[in-house]
Amino acid sequence: MKRIAPLILSIAILIVLGLVLPAQTQSKTNGPVFLSDNQLVRPANYREWIWVSSGLGMTYGPREQSSSAAEPRFDNVFVTPEAYRAFMKTGKWPNKTMFVLEIRSSQTQGSINKDGHFQGDLVTVEAEVKDESRFPETKWGFFPFRSNEQSAKPASPATTECQACHSRNGAVDNTFVQFYPTLLEVAKQKGTLKQVPADSK
Amino acid sequence: MKRIAPLILSIAILIVLGLVLPAQTQSKTNGPVFLSDNQLVRPANYREWIWVSSGLGMTYGPREQSSSAAEPRFDNVFVTPEAYRAFMKTGKWPNKTMFVLEIRSSQTQGSINKDGHFQGDLVTVEAEVKDESRFPETKWGFFPFRSNEQSAKPASPATTECQACHSRNGAVDNTFVQFYPTLLEVAKQKGTLKQVPADSK
Repeated sequence: MKRIAPLILSIAILIVLGLVLPAQTQSKTNGPVFLSDNQLVRPANYREWIWVSSGLGMTYGPREQSSSAAEPRFDNVFVTPEAYRAFMKTGKWPNKTMFVLEIRSSQTQGSINKDGHFQGDLVTVEAEVKDESRFPETKWGFFPFRSNEQSAKPASPATTECQACHSRNGAVDNTFVQFYPTLLEVAKQKGTLKQVPADSK
Repeated sequence: MKRIAPLILSIAILIVLGLVLPAQTQSKTNGPVFLSDNQLVRPANYREWIWVSSGLGMTYGPREQSSSAAEPRFDNVFVTPEAYRAFMKTGKWPNKTMFVLEIRSSQTQGSINKDGHFQGDLVTVEAEVKDESRFPETKWGFFPFRSNEQSAKPASPATTECQACHSRNGAVDNTFVQFYPTLLEVAKQKGTLKQVPADSK
C-alpha cells in the first residue's frame, strides 16, 4: 500500500495535467502556419489578437498621391498576443512574430454620425511575418491575401516596396512602431528604437 | 487498498485542478471591479482586450459642432474578452460587459507620413459597464476617468448625455454596434439589432 499510493498519485497528476494543459496552451497559440512554397495560411482570428493602432488615409509618398481626400481608408494593425507579450518585456520582436494589416473603407454619414469617419467594409488583408529560417536575408516576409484566398505567397523580398520601406523606415526592426503610440513608449524605455534617417523623422 | 486507491486518486485530481484552474481562470478574467459608491476601478489592461473599432473625428451633433476639421481625435473602442465571446455566440451583451472608449489625438506629419492621420497622445478614457443590479433602471453605467485617477464615479444616469444617446441610438442594447463592422454582421445574423428611429439611420 505505502509503495503503490505515491505511484497512483503521480499517475493521476500526470493524467490531469495532460488533460488541462494542452487545452490551455492551444487556445493561446496564434503563430504563423505555412504550406508548401512558404505560403502563409490566412489567420482566421486576427481580430482577436492585440490591436496596436489604426490610422486614416495615411500616405507615405508625396501628398499628391494621397488617397485621403476623397475616400480615405482606415488601416488597422494587429499582432499575435505571444509577440506582443515578448515586446512588452524586451522592446523587440521575437522570431515568428506575425502582424496583420487590415484595410477598411470609411464612412461619414450613417446612423447619428454627421462628420468625421467610422469604419466600413473590408478592403484587403496583408500579413508580415518574422521568420529567420524561411527568410534568412530579410528576416521578414510580406503576404498580401487576395480577396477570399485562404493562403498567400510571400511577395518577392528583393523587389517588394513593403520590404524596402519597412526595412529602411521601421522604428523597431522591420516595423512601424513610430505609429503605435503605446509600443513606441515601450521601445523608448527599452532602448530598442533604431536611428531613423533624419529625412524620415 | 482497493477502497483507498480511488480516494487518493480523487484527492490528487482535486489538488491538481485546484492548482491549475484558478491560474487559468484568473488570467482570463477582466470584468469590472467596483469600490464603495459604485466607483469603478480604472481597468489597467484594456488595450489587451478585444478592440472593436476606431473612428476619427466622429460627430453626433450638427456639423457646425464638429471637432474633425482642425484637430480631429481618434476614438478607440475595446470590450472585455468574456463579453466579446458571448456576443459572438448570441449577438447580445451579458451582464458585467465592460467597454472602454479611449480618445487619442491625431497627427499628420511624422516619420515618413505626409497625409492622413495616425494616433498620438492619450486624451481621455471612459468606461461603460452593464450591471443590472447596480443600475436597475438603466442597466448600464458610464464612468469618465479624470486624467490619472484610478477610479471613477458613475455619471448620473438620469442626466448624462451618454446614457440618453446610447439608450436611444444604440443598435444593440445600449451600444453603438452600428459603428463596429464585424459585430454588426453578427448582430444581423443573430437578429438582435434594435429598430433604430428613422431619423437616426
